[in-house]
Amino acid sequence: MATSLTHVRIVGAGLIGTSIALALRATGVKVTLCDSDSRAQSLARDLMGEHNGEDGGIEDLCIVATPPNFIAEVIQAELSRNSQLRVMDISSIKTKPLHDVSSIGFDLSLFAPTHPMAGREVSGPQSARGDLFQGRPWILCLNEVDPELSRLVRDVVSRCGAIALDRTVGEHDQAVALVSHLPQMVASLLASQLLAGQGSEIELAGAGLRDTTRIAESDPALWAQILAGNSAALRPLLISLQNDLSHAIENLEDEVSMAQLISNGQRGRAVIPGKHGGQARNYTYLDIVIDDKPGQLAAIIETCAAAKVNIEDLAIEHTPGQQTGLITLAFSAEDSSIVAAHLKKEGWKVHPSR
Amino acid sequence: MATSLTHVRIVGAGLIGTSIALALRATGVKVTLCDSDSRAQSLARDLMGEHNGEDGGIEDLCIVATPPNFIAEVIQAELSRNSQLRVMDISSIKTKPLHDVSSIGFDLSLFAPTHPMAGREVSGPQSARGDLFQGRPWILCLNEVDPELSRLVRDVVSRCGAIALDRTVGEHDQAVALVSHLPQMVASLLASQLLAGQGSEIELAGAGLRDTTRIAESDPALWAQILAGNSAALRPLLISLQNDLSHAIENLEDEVSMAQLISNGQRGRAVIPGKHGGQARNYTYLDIVIDDKPGQLAAIIETCAAAKVNIEDLAIEHTPGQQTGLITLAFSAEDSSIVAAHLKKEGWKVHPSR
Repeated sequence: MATSLTHVRIVGAGLIGTSIALALRATGVKVTLCDSDSRAQSLARDLMGEHNGEDGGIEDLCIVATPPNFIAEVIQAELSRNSQLRVMDISSIKTKPLHDVSSIGFDLSLFAPTHPMAGREVSGPQSARGDLFQGRPWILCLNEVDPELSRLVRDVVSRCGAIALDRTVGEHDQAVALVSHLPQMVASLLASQLLAGQGSEIELAGAGLRDTTRIAESDPALWAQILAGNSAALRPLLISLQNDLSHAIENLEDEVSMAQLISNGQRGRAVIPGKHGGQARNYTYLDIVIDDKPGQLAAIIETCAAAKVNIEDLAIEHTPGQQTGLITLAFSAEDSSIVAAHLKKEGWKVHPSR
Repeated sequence: MATSLTHVRIVGAGLIGTSIALALRATGVKVTLCDSDSRAQSLARDLMGEHNGEDGGIEDLCIVATPPNFIAEVIQAELSRNSQLRVMDISSIKTKPLHDVSSIGFDLSLFAPTHPMAGREVSGPQSARGDLFQGRPWILCLNEVDPELSRLVRDVVSRCGAIALDRTVGEHDQAVALVSHLPQMVASLLASQLLAGQGSEIELAGAGLRDTTRIAESDPALWAQILAGNSAALRPLLISLQNDLSHAIENLEDEVSMAQLISNGQRGRAVIPGKHGGQARNYTYLDIVIDDKPGQLAAIIETCAAAKVNIEDLAIEHTPGQQTGLITLAFSAEDSSIVAAHLKKEGWKVHPSR
């Protein structure tokens, strides 16, 4: 019985499984990576380079990185080759897989429910990266789990550079229903309303519609399992939304009611933490109008680097039919005035910070 | 009667009114800018510099840039000082202001309903910029309007650098209900659900929730007038959403139904045009992991400029609690391979394009 990781087997060479494989491999752990889809397995093993994650030997830990519905089935197959199996689950929902695994009689103290809170709208091993989990929360539900397995799991999280957060299975499913599954469903429902629109209407779409529907690009097969699998936690939230929507429809002509609706949204928006996890930071923004051609952005960023300021965030906004662009840079208030002075001196069209 | 603009009076020194004032002033038009809020008027006039938009003389055109409910009232006040009043309306809804203006007996051939499709979550003259309308669509509903007023209006749009799109009042209100008012209501309703969440839940929020709720920061007083004022066009869309939501709640455990919901959202998302207005472009993306310190981004962008490639889009992703960052650059497929080779040669951690 190993006290720290030496060999991990990962079943499922998708975005998450391959990213974990890359991260663990980079810290010297032997990784065996496999997938029932031979194309995904082959691509993922190629991505791992010379340590290409082939079969061989018995692992300390098996990470099941399949969509949630297949976890119990994978465990049954794995047991036939390793009767000492210790499993780490990384799926987006926790209650249902735990129930499935319990149903096949697997010892639950050897099954560790976890969830790395990192993902992308894109999927597959081609989207994997070893740093996907760097600094991201990784939820661990280990209170019923064997101490040795708990140690191995925490070692995985640490090697991936993630931040371990302990929760119960129920707390996890409640939280992701609110911050992940509800927004996914809302974005998808909103985007699907566009199918009834005319082209002459949709050509007026701006950044607001684009941002609000970005996550509607997510994978249907995976998300069907997530939404259906977490229906118990998700349903009350959807019903609350449904009630608020019905109330809004009834009171659509009432400006006091509409102002309250928008105001509630402002207050809700304000509780979302900013980047780096903590409280939302107050940045100062500089807007700079540029020509949409090579070298403009480079020159601006070069000026920032020369001024020894740290760019906290950056956005480029292009305008349709027009070959000008707008660069928005975020700084600390102090850095902002330093860099604004530099840029103005160089003749850039710097707009007042906000 | 002027055949081109020489003097414009703008009533309302908010984001839109002040931005129009700045744009017109830059092309040599005399601008008188006023607001019933003396602080806004004073700030906006200061922003205009030496040509500071003070009162004086009779204008060719009066642009009413107030929230929609105040348009008729402003016209009545303006008529007392200029009986030859020609009005350009720039509010976000068209049917209701037209009705209000008709109710006070104003000659509708002297009232031009228009709507610049440019805005920001931020408001007030401090957020104004003269280039706000550059390349953005500006909807004109001029089929009932006097030809001389139409010419003046098109001159304003042209001087602001916007792209004139002709629509009827009804077509306008239908289109913005779909691409602007529905997303606003959805984002606000979603964000308001967070008020019932625990801090331990919301600290798990990621980019998906942040993007989906960004426009929930909009101004309640203005949006109450917009939503209530366009209720006729908005209601059927909200009812369609309500039906889809109810259907989703009923079928939440059914994976086939959930996959269909996510898939419909994918198809709806795909009809939104990309930047530069036309069809969504296919970009190739490069992911580059950097240290979160000054100079890294500059060096990468410098390499792109030296390679003479055009960066089509750029995003920075920071990871909470971690001092590394991810730069994502978008290129044409050809430029992508050129720049990837350059960056790799310089030792950057370039991840496979997707």
